[in-house]
Amino acid sequence: MRLLVFLFACLLACAALPHCAEAAKARHFKWEVSNMFWSPDCEEKVLIGINGQFPGPTIRAKAGDTIVVELKNALHTEGVVIHWHGIRQIGTPWADGTAAISQCAINPEEHFTYRFVVDKPGTYFYHGHYGMQRAAGLYGSLIVDVADGEEEPFKYDGELNLLLSDWYHESIYNQMVGLSSKPMRWIGEPQSLLINGRGQFNCSLAAAHTQGAKQCTGGGNKHCAPVVFPVLPNKTYRLRVASTTSLASLNLAIGNHKLTVVEADGNYVEPFTVDDMDIYSGDSYSVLLTTDQNPSSNYWISIGVRGRNPKTAPALALLNYRPNNRAMKLPAVAPPATPAWNDYAHSKAFTQRILARAGTPPPPATSDRRIELLNTQNKMDGGIKWSINNASMVLPATPYLGSLKLLGLKPTLGASARPAESFGRGYDVTRPPANPNTTVGDNVYVLAHNATVDVVLQNANALAHNVSEVHPWHLHGHDFWVLGYGEGAYNGDAADAARLNLRNPPLRNTAVIFPYGWTALRFVADNPGVWAFHCHIEPHLHMGMGVIFAEAVERVGEVPKAAISCGATATALMAGGDHP
Amino acid sequence: MRLLVFLFACLLACAALPHCAEAAKARHFKWEVSNMFWSPDCEEKVLIGINGQFPGPTIRAKAGDTIVVELKNALHTEGVVIHWHGIRQIGTPWADGTAAISQCAINPEEHFTYRFVVDKPGTYFYHGHYGMQRAAGLYGSLIVDVADGEEEPFKYDGELNLLLSDWYHESIYNQMVGLSSKPMRWIGEPQSLLINGRGQFNCSLAAAHTQGAKQCTGGGNKHCAPVVFPVLPNKTYRLRVASTTSLASLNLAIGNHKLTVVEADGNYVEPFTVDDMDIYSGDSYSVLLTTDQNPSSNYWISIGVRGRNPKTAPALALLNYRPNNRAMKLPAVAPPATPAWNDYAHSKAFTQRILARAGTPPPPATSDRRIELLNTQNKMDGGIKWSINNASMVLPATPYLGSLKLLGLKPTLGASARPAESFGRGYDVTRPPANPNTTVGDNVYVLAHNATVDVVLQNANALAHNVSEVHPWHLHGHDFWVLGYGEGAYNGDAADAARLNLRNPPLRNTAVIFPYGWTALRFVADNPGVWAFHCHIEPHLHMGMGVIFAEAVERVGEVPKAAISCGATATALMAGGDHP
Repeated sequence: MRLLVFLFACLLACAALPHCAEAAKARHFKWEVSNMFWSPDCEEKVLIGINGQFPGPTIRAKAGDTIVVELKNALHTEGVVIHWHGIRQIGTPWADGTAAISQCAINPEEHFTYRFVVDKPGTYFYHGHYGMQRAAGLYGSLIVDVADGEEEPFKYDGELNLLLSDWYHESIYNQMVGLSSKPMRWIGEPQSLLINGRGQFNCSLAAAHTQGAKQCTGGGNKHCAPVVFPVLPNKTYRLRVASTTSLASLNLAIGNHKLTVVEADGNYVEPFTVDDMDIYSGDSYSVLLTTDQNPSSNYWISIGVRGRNPKTAPALALLNYRPNNRAMKLPAVAPPATPAWNDYAHSKAFTQRILARAGTPPPPATSDRRIELLNTQNKMDGGIKWSINNASMVLPATPYLGSLKLLGLKPTLGASARPAESFGRGYDVTRPPANPNTTVGDNVYVLAHNATVDVVLQNANALAHNVSEVHPWHLHGHDFWVLGYGEGAYNGDAADAARLNLRNPPLRNTAVIFPYGWTALRFVADNPGVWAFHCHIEPHLHMGMGVIFAEAVERVGEVPKAAISCGATATALMAGGDHP
Repeated sequence: MRLLVFLFACLLACAALPHCAEAAKARHFKWEVSNMFWSPDCEEKVLIGINGQFPGPTIRAKAGDTIVVELKNALHTEGVVIHWHGIRQIGTPWADGTAAISQCAINPEEHFTYRFVVDKPGTYFYHGHYGMQRAAGLYGSLIVDVADGEEEPFKYDGELNLLLSDWYHESIYNQMVGLSSKPMRWIGEPQSLLINGRGQFNCSLAAAHTQGAKQCTGGGNKHCAPVVFPVLPNKTYRLRVASTTSLASLNLAIGNHKLTVVEADGNYVEPFTVDDMDIYSGDSYSVLLTTDQNPSSNYWISIGVRGRNPKTAPALALLNYRPNNRAMKLPAVAPPATPAWNDYAHSKAFTQRILARAGTPPPPATSDRRIELLNTQNKMDGGIKWSINNASMVLPATPYLGSLKLLGLKPTLGASARPAESFGRGYDVTRPPANPNTTVGDNVYVLAHNATVDVVLQNANALAHNVSEVHPWHLHGHDFWVLGYGEGAYNGDAADAARLNLRNPPLRNTAVIFPYGWTALRFVADNPGVWAFHCHIEPHLHMGMGVIFAEAVERVGEVPKAAISCGATATALMAGGDHP
């Protein structure tokens, strides 16, 4: 809250100053979303692109700018929305781009204008947030530079942008049907990993170092041409790295080069240097890299899978030292190996090094409310779901922002009971659920204005014995402080409290829960709106792994009609004598 | 109009009589539309089913009944509508189930209630009418029996129902992207033909008589189990036959048996007997068959492709004489051969035998307006379209029924000019278009109340030399009289006029144009609404082959809000102070 008050004060002050008002400008974009044939990994399929591009166009702006995206849905029968991942949408909750939550899906042939301020510099991205459209390729980068006259707290000579994703050959329609089927059909591991929308299936750039692999020819199809990042020797580059994977947790390493992490999810962190770094779906980072190696070589950039026994080959790109080398001169050595998929100690060590940079607002010392969310895999009606406190989230026909603000509608499922604030002590997180059956729920938590809210995300054993997965949880509308991580069941006792860092916890919008562990978050409910909080793994969200924070909805400003012109909000608010 | 006045009088009279009011009842259905895995021809794919069934449930009602279908859209990101093909929707144009025309597409998780009277006995069907959802399997039978106390004008002992379709292994999403691509990718011929949703791919029930074919085993997968129709010897059966194919024109023959046609598109026709019959997409028929053959055999029911050089094997089913034979006892002889695909003389002979049964209201002797519609294949921006009078139809974001009635909106494309009433004399229908370029259009024809309208559909050469295809045109909201057919260009001269039959033309809702020929239709604009009129070939409609009749929209009754709760009608009619 202190942070937001500060920012609001800045914006008000800025608006009053002529030179400042000039600097913050509106950046207009016209986008058309459509299906198209594309071959991201040299295998053709239909994906969702923007303006004929995949990934979508990169948005580049300065802190304080207003982004205006006039979007036309040119899909044939599908609605669409775009979520601006990491942008808090302060005062514009209807622009958050979550179907059934913040707005009516934009129907085919309709236009919708997203208008919001990017108040904070950082590395962001955007993506579809309806069904599993993100996994159909509907994503792109959103990069916010510091405002004119401001400086980043670190120096660099150039930038490289890596938007990471995973890729399935099965259509998202088939994937969604499979996940909802009884018995469920799991989507399996991705066929490829993509860097900026490009990858190689069934071949490797490093075949010479990879048992049984076929050398990629690289020629011909520009959709899947290898990614090459040209750099000059003895410079410092800022790598902007973000992951919009559907499933895979990733690890990035660059042969012979160290990585210094300086930003996470649009917040500066205390710089630290590593050989490799994990990136979960929903994460974004900036890392500094110095081109201090032998300039007569190129170097591998390698992206591999963590947290699941990988069946997907690493994505490879080339760090191309110019002007010495040809772009496609392959390094003589093997690409850096990805750490073992289940080396969670390595992952935890990396994650726990992420701490707020000096100057970051600290969290309030105490909270007003604690919500404990148990993550379990369950059975329902012959299918499989993910549940939160034993309720698997389903979304309504009419988006919450409109229905809660304008119609005062109560959640439609489990309306008699508010979702549980905790899962109760004594749940054995080390075993499959004793009662594996779950039910559906709205999972809507109503938050009071300006309340300081703690959320404890509790991981547990899945349905199978000795399985507990990593889940990266993403919060809309806010950054949160990551207060700490623990092993086993959270008890809220002194030992757990001692694990919390109230001094310099990092501000983020995505935080991971490790197998059998818990993660504690804190945020201030100072941004009226209806916000999704969910596992960022696309099939897990589809299977119900999320909750909704309905935050001070009475304080939300006038919602644009285009965001509520569907369902119950449209029919209830329509004038005229037509019968129901 | 005389017919409608008569029917209205009947309904009014009926409502006044207690016993009659009892007889006409409301029939309620609850449907859930969802994607599901299915194997119609033993190859699994995702299709659109209703209540877990494919094809959707058969609706059976009596003339005068009110059908009430409460539909829930359980698709994940797609809207949906259902069109009740052949039902005129007198007084209920919002229930016609055409997205962007008669109603807002029903969004995921939303409910919409279709409520309409089936005023006329006959053989009908229903299907999706949004994008190419019909081709994804969204269809089923709708059969209306005569009202209690009424009798059909022919006798029979039992009924067999054959809902015919064709089947593609490529998803409709890929098909739609291909058709819209530049260059266009044509969908090609279907992989299979289906009878009641079942077919056999890559094998034949009649392999013994089919060069190079593999015998279908038939066992195991019930989705594609062979269709068997049990009959008793020496009985008369009414076969109800309807085609909801995406592309294929079909021909039906039954080994050793004659077919007596008695109904077409829900209208009685003068009975005539044939060895085989053509069925175009959108057609429905009743034919009588007498089981007067040797009862110790079963007999082939064979459905083959006409009008396009076929690459799809005939669909086969068995007429199973009981109690003598096993269901799967295969006939010793080969299935009846489908007439040569390009034997148009055969097709024309069949079509022109279809004449109104005595008692059918004749058409008005003259018309108030004649609209001539030239069908051409054209190029646009590197793609391929079908055009009507050189305008390829595109549909708006906000459905016409709401926008025209409530907002008085003008069509958005080519708003300065109404669509052409004719294509002008002198167009050479025997050659590819001299100027192959086309443009998009709303193609909205405004019809005055009670006007008698003639439509002349003119076929022509496609883009390639010596190619002119068959197109079955389907009109919503009306039956029309098929006044006649001609070869070459329609001139409107005495010779053309002499070809028109004003004495006993058949009433239909679908009529075919033959290659290089024309077809003349007449109807009375006595049913206020906004009605699609289009080629019933799914990819052709997708490529723009249609027009819209906006008929006395000022007389349309109160439109249910659920049909207009989207787009401009929703935002314009919503009360409250929200900014635009």
